[in-house]
Amino acid sequence: MDHKEGAYKVKDLSLAPKGRKRIEWAESRMPVLMRLREEFSESKPFEGYKIAGCLHVTKETAVLVETLAACGAEVAWSGCNPLSTNDEVAAALAENGMAEIYAWHGQDTEAFYWSIDETIQPKAPHLTLDDGADLIFRVHSEYPEMADTIVGGSEETTTGVHRLRAMDDDGKLLYPVFAVNDAETKWDFDNVYGTGQSTIDGILRASSVMLAGKNFVVAGYGHCSSGVAMRAKGMGANVIVTEVKPTAALKATLDGHRVMTMDEAAKIGDIFVTATGMKDVIRGRHFLGMKDGAIVSNTGHYDVELNLEELAELSVDTREVRENNREYTLENGKRIFILADGRLVNLAAAEGHPSEVMDMSFANQFQAHLALVRKHESGEAFGPHVIDLPEELDQEIARIKLDTMGINIDSLTEEQEIYATDYSAGT
Amino acid sequence: MDHKEGAYKVKDLSLAPKGRKRIEWAESRMPVLMRLREEFSESKPFEGYKIAGCLHVTKETAVLVETLAACGAEVAWSGCNPLSTNDEVAAALAENGMAEIYAWHGQDTEAFYWSIDETIQPKAPHLTLDDGADLIFRVHSEYPEMADTIVGGSEETTTGVHRLRAMDDDGKLLYPVFAVNDAETKWDFDNVYGTGQSTIDGILRASSVMLAGKNFVVAGYGHCSSGVAMRAKGMGANVIVTEVKPTAALKATLDGHRVMTMDEAAKIGDIFVTATGMKDVIRGRHFLGMKDGAIVSNTGHYDVELNLEELAELSVDTREVRENNREYTLENGKRIFILADGRLVNLAAAEGHPSEVMDMSFANQFQAHLALVRKHESGEAFGPHVIDLPEELDQEIARIKLDTMGINIDSLTEEQEIYATDYSAGT
Amino acid sequence: MDHKEGAYKVKDLSLAPKGRKRIEWAESRMPVLMRLREEFSESKPFEGYKIAGCLHVTKETAVLVETLAACGAEVAWSGCNPLSTNDEVAAALAENGMAEIYAWHGQDTEAFYWSIDETIQPKAPHLTLDDGADLIFRVHSEYPEMADTIVGGSEETTTGVHRLRAMDDDGKLLYPVFAVNDAETKWDFDNVYGTGQSTIDGILRASSVMLAGKNFVVAGYGHCSSGVAMRAKGMGANVIVTEVKPTAALKATLDGHRVMTMDEAAKIGDIFVTATGMKDVIRGRHFLGMKDGAIVSNTGHYDVELNLEELAELSVDTREVRENNREYTLENGKRIFILADGRLVNLAAAEGHPSEVMDMSFANQFQAHLALVRKHESGEAFGPHVIDLPEELDQEIARIKLDTMGINIDSLTEEQEIYATDYSAGT
Amino acid sequence: MDHKEGAYKVKDLSLAPKGRKRIEWAESRMPVLMRLREEFSESKPFEGYKIAGCLHVTKETAVLVETLAACGAEVAWSGCNPLSTNDEVAAALAENGMAEIYAWHGQDTEAFYWSIDETIQPKAPHLTLDDGADLIFRVHSEYPEMADTIVGGSEETTTGVHRLRAMDDDGKLLYPVFAVNDAETKWDFDNVYGTGQSTIDGILRASSVMLAGKNFVVAGYGHCSSGVAMRAKGMGANVIVTEVKPTAALKATLDGHRVMTMDEAAKIGDIFVTATGMKDVIRGRHFLGMKDGAIVSNTGHYDVELNLEELAELSVDTREVRENNREYTLENGKRIFILADGRLVNLAAAEGHPSEVMDMSFANQFQAHLALVRKHESGEAFGPHVIDLPEELDQEIARIKLDTMGINIDSLTEEQEIYATDYSAGT
Repeated sequence: MDHKEGAYKVKDLSLAPKGRKRIEWAESRMPVLMRLREEFSESKPFEGYKIAGCLHVTKETAVLVETLAACGAEVAWSGCNPLSTNDEVAAALAENGMAEIYAWHGQDTEAFYWSIDETIQPKAPHLTLDDGADLIFRVHSEYPEMADTIVGGSEETTTGVHRLRAMDDDGKLLYPVFAVNDAETKWDFDNVYGTGQSTIDGILRASSVMLAGKNFVVAGYGHCSSGVAMRAKGMGANVIVTEVKPTAALKATLDGHRVMTMDEAAKIGDIFVTATGMKDVIRGRHFLGMKDGAIVSNTGHYDVELNLEELAELSVDTREVRENNREYTLENGKRIFILADGRLVNLAAAEGHPSEVMDMSFANQFQAHLALVRKHESGEAFGPHVIDLPEELDQEIARIKLDTMGINIDSLTEEQEIYATDYSAGT
Repeated sequence: MDHKEGAYKVKDLSLAPKGRKRIEWAESRMPVLMRLREEFSESKPFEGYKIAGCLHVTKETAVLVETLAACGAEVAWSGCNPLSTNDEVAAALAENGMAEIYAWHGQDTEAFYWSIDETIQPKAPHLTLDDGADLIFRVHSEYPEMADTIVGGSEETTTGVHRLRAMDDDGKLLYPVFAVNDAETKWDFDNVYGTGQSTIDGILRASSVMLAGKNFVVAGYGHCSSGVAMRAKGMGANVIVTEVKPTAALKATLDGHRVMTMDEAAKIGDIFVTATGMKDVIRGRHFLGMKDGAIVSNTGHYDVELNLEELAELSVDTREVRENNREYTLENGKRIFILADGRLVNLAAAEGHPSEVMDMSFANQFQAHLALVRKHESGEAFGPHVIDLPEELDQEIARIKLDTMGINIDSLTEEQEIYATDYSAGT
Repeated sequence: MDHKEGAYKVKDLSLAPKGRKRIEWAESRMPVLMRLREEFSESKPFEGYKIAGCLHVTKETAVLVETLAACGAEVAWSGCNPLSTNDEVAAALAENGMAEIYAWHGQDTEAFYWSIDETIQPKAPHLTLDDGADLIFRVHSEYPEMADTIVGGSEETTTGVHRLRAMDDDGKLLYPVFAVNDAETKWDFDNVYGTGQSTIDGILRASSVMLAGKNFVVAGYGHCSSGVAMRAKGMGANVIVTEVKPTAALKATLDGHRVMTMDEAAKIGDIFVTATGMKDVIRGRHFLGMKDGAIVSNTGHYDVELNLEELAELSVDTREVRENNREYTLENGKRIFILADGRLVNLAAAEGHPSEVMDMSFANQFQAHLALVRKHESGEAFGPHVIDLPEELDQEIARIKLDTMGINIDSLTEEQEIYATDYSAGT
Repeated sequence: MDHKEGAYKVKDLSLAPKGRKRIEWAESRMPVLMRLREEFSESKPFEGYKIAGCLHVTKETAVLVETLAACGAEVAWSGCNPLSTNDEVAAALAENGMAEIYAWHGQDTEAFYWSIDETIQPKAPHLTLDDGADLIFRVHSEYPEMADTIVGGSEETTTGVHRLRAMDDDGKLLYPVFAVNDAETKWDFDNVYGTGQSTIDGILRASSVMLAGKNFVVAGYGHCSSGVAMRAKGMGANVIVTEVKPTAALKATLDGHRVMTMDEAAKIGDIFVTATGMKDVIRGRHFLGMKDGAIVSNTGHYDVELNLEELAELSVDTREVRENNREYTLENGKRIFILADGRLVNLAAAEGHPSEVMDMSFANQFQAHLALVRKHESGEAFGPHVIDLPEELDQEIARIKLDTMGINIDSLTEEQEIYATDYSAGT
């Protein structure tokens, strides 16, 4: 472990060159964030502000961290998941010294909280940036007095926003937080297109299985899961969807997929992916019904969707057959292959969302903090609530993204603007 | 014209047998509505209620009319568009006498209002059912006193709901109206899947053009237009999307379509479809830039999306080359083919939405009126506002649809229900 | 019937204006043939040659007929199927007088042969052009002496080529015949892309059924049938394939379709299409197993694929419910809907292959006859055999097609040409 | 290096356990070959025969090797490419001792031929099995006397078959060789479905780039390249095809792709894949025209398709940014990323064809050798020519594959068999 007080604690500083390359690669795929960096690196709107962040230490996150720093912020960072830190990237961040970084792969709980604390102690942040709300919870529970000087925060995930809204409803939230997750340019792209591709990627890396001609069972037909179904179909699989919500099931049907219960699907599926947000979606009795050789994975947020305890109980043997691929032999002699031990297969076995979608998510993060700072400097305040990013900002981010892709779109003529207004007036 | 006072006025009663066959065909494709008919034809919940309806007289509408009548209602009907009435279907409705019907193809304005008035005079209705809000406006402007005894109404379209919400905001609405349009099982299916298929159908009937390999330009990427793009791609076309909204444009890109301005698209497109809700989407300068032989159509609600006045001015000649297909020869010698004179190509050249999607839309209509009657009989009232159908009803309609398709879906276990609740509580 | 000796016999000359519009529409979609017309209308290579043709009298055929005439040929034409003649088109051909035309819808067998005879009598043709080989058989059986002056012929269909090859093998063929059917630009486009789209078109016109979410059963997975499966999937259907050939079945699986026996498919299918070339593909026991409301059609060459005799025996009632859509009510009360009485649904209910694919097929016809004439004028002869069009011609026709679509492709550099040769030499 | 005379020479025997797991994983995905193993492991048809093989030492090949051995053969094996040997798999083969194995990653030319010689010396083989024909050429050039006792051979690749046919034409072939490559169950599946998926897989592993919304340029539209295009489209990319063959270009167009020259495509492409079999498909001037950040790869057989010498000359800097991903910075400042140094991206960056398709290819290998042995034992001989596997064998392999997938297909009734015959007789 390499540790320099008040600067970093990472696994191994010598990994920095490799990490730097990863970051540069990500930079080449994140034009929106890079354009924001360019636009604001001279005016430095974050000068005088300390941002504490707690979010997966990946190559894309590093681009965000260094962009915030380049635009004037004092940044201190920790990882939001003990297993998601890329030690090479962490080393590169430590080495270049633009931001404090406390993160390594395989932290225990104590180290996890120690790292968070390092980012907010001894100097309190003005802004907090979260993925799952662990940092903001830490502030609320352990350092509530900090809230007086905190301008605001932001939250990346559905779950985190969920929790913060509950706190807001209870009047417990101490400062304003932008629900970055709920931005259309985050939520509608990240989930559908990001999860769709990266899940296929994770399954291929962990199994190298032929997808064409396989019965590919997707549990759920929400944003993430319908993205997975779309891409599996695009790779030649025959997709089967299971759902509990009738309208979602009906959409799956009209999109050309088969819909049935998991009990039925379990018997004929070759490959399974869950993405429902629900626990025990595939459990003992389903595993028992499966064909020999079935491959089962999860790409929902938590590792509760597959009940692996029940599977272990039904098994006479288990062993790792490939990286991120564990074989369970059931009493009936059949073998079931679990990918990434039921954790997010797209993150564990592949590289999570492509940089291109994180580009938009993190542009939202950047803009959220910019909005907080500007409001603060205007002398006004948002109030201690969960706030949505304005729809114009979504359109602006999408517009920059299109521009970086070299795509022009139409705009309304003056007469069309008038028609739009007339129409909305109800003629 | 065949006219029987207090019973019907239709083009030609002798067309009834043909119309009856159309209705029976639609019945065979509308299992949800037929199941409601079966379920409620004995208890007759609408007994004692008169329903006045003003909605396109098509085979699917006839199934709705006769279902309402079979469940006890006294029904009087007119068409909501002078050109959309199918005279065979109208004759069949007139002949069997379950409902009053005043509708024929090619009505003038006077006949149009006369027909509406026949459905609400001399006996005032208890319930009104609209597509575009013409009937309910008539009541409000000409017969406001009727509102005292009207239990409520329903509205089928986006535009109609738009208008009624404006009235509601102004405090001018005299009785409650269900926004049937806004039901997920109406809006999300009808628009995407219904418009998608029927627009392809209309273009093929009007032109018999090969779609594979064609540059197929779709103006807009909302619900209707993205459905059209999806189906055009499915037929082998190379889809180009034009948009004014950046997030929609970005989605089109990530769905694999090309995005550009209409000025660019006009030059390379072989087939054009507009579905934006905006006027003048394709106008003079676009027509001028087109290739010889371009085929241009509209599937948005109004016929304003193509500026045919400008096209006519630029043309030296025009003639009909096929049914619903008009050739314009420009001064530069190029020929442009306009389908259905710029009116809804899916309704004018094909048969509109397939019965299968109208099945759900009209099940929503049925349920809306059932809810109005039940509320009324319970002694309570909704109040004079635009009301949304409850989400449970959407799920119920989707569930019946799935059931009629022989599809079973999962339901949560008790433990999963608890997990769902815990989760929402924020654990 | 309008009849002018030595010129025409058609249903009704007054239909000519309508037919002329159809032909002009086809011309606007057949740029390759129109370019050949332009290229050779001055030099008139067919001057002095009489071409007798026997091929479906459609708008596309009319473009071929008038192109041959414009390039100098004396043309006499009859239809190759008693039911496929479009009387409007026939009238237009008769009226403009560029070619003799003997064809009307609903000919009996006697009239059919009378028409053929009119095209070869009293003046014998130099060239014959066939679709199904009826004309060339007539020459061989009734007028074998003509063979002395016949330069050669051509044949459009798989079946016709099949028969002619058999004659060739037996040494019975009297003059050379180009197997136009076997050209890649005919066979590989016409069948896959032409049949694919036009079958979907025919089903929609005859039933207006929603395709999305339907179990769509395709019998066969050859060129035609795989094209149908591809398009049905593109419209959102869930495709099921039945096959007797294992490699074809496996391909269907890897293309993401389900594969099963017809006995299984019959039970769950909503829509059926056969395209196998085999008889009785769907027969009594299959009909018995179907769901109420099943829609059944054929798009293979002959009407033998559905055993309607067995269906009729199992039925207690039958009636037409829409044009080209006949309902059979079985003893078990279930209703089955047969489209176009089991005949080619894409021709009977829609308009057959789009003009764009016939453009290439007929360019092959034109080139075949040009090659026959040139060989003849060079003093050489092909010999009395079935001959393939040279592959260069395929490439040439495809090249022109691409050019008319505004598409440029690469060509090999000199060095690459050398590499190609080296490689084939085995380095 | 671990070396045991007459038994093995591999990199490191201690890698055997890892290799064994790989092999077992492949076994679980190769049911056809495993069924053949089961069927013939008792009768041992290869007893008394020595098979020398020269083919990529991968997990799938190991399954073939051990299947041949289990069915009685004495097997000796070398790798057919200095870089394609998986050292773990080689170690596992060495350890279990069922076959002799001489292969390691990174052999030089001398070691390459030494390894081949070890498999045929001192004991001459009865059968040879090739991928690229290196072994059989070695026999012909260095040990022609062996041909007297060699029963026959087989060849896996297009290139190898090409060369052997040339030898056959020259009368130089000394013993019969089955063209396994030309079997439909090898050629049509391996290339389209295998290359399609594994190329996408390789690109994702080497770049983690978002495919949706990208301009994805595929050079070529043959079997391999059209498979790549199909899968790229399935992942949401916008596919552009370049071709030199008009018919192939036209098919690409009708499949919904854009077609243009490489000069045009170079300017707008985000990702490039070549699969043409031609050299210099992407060369200096193309690289110069590309956008900053373009990703370029090859999935054709040889590494000549990208002219990296010209790229290097145009570059001011180059470095590896990720595994199998090299950045070139051009004088104009733009960066181009070359995957796997222009070698087969699906093998170098991913795992080559999925086991499921190799299952069929290798079942053909097994059957070819079985046919050689049986012919030999019957006292007959094939003669020293390149021979095609009988079509029945293709159908049989496809039938077994379907069976292992649980798929049943139809068979002709007696009457249908008769109809098929009648038809071919020309009725």
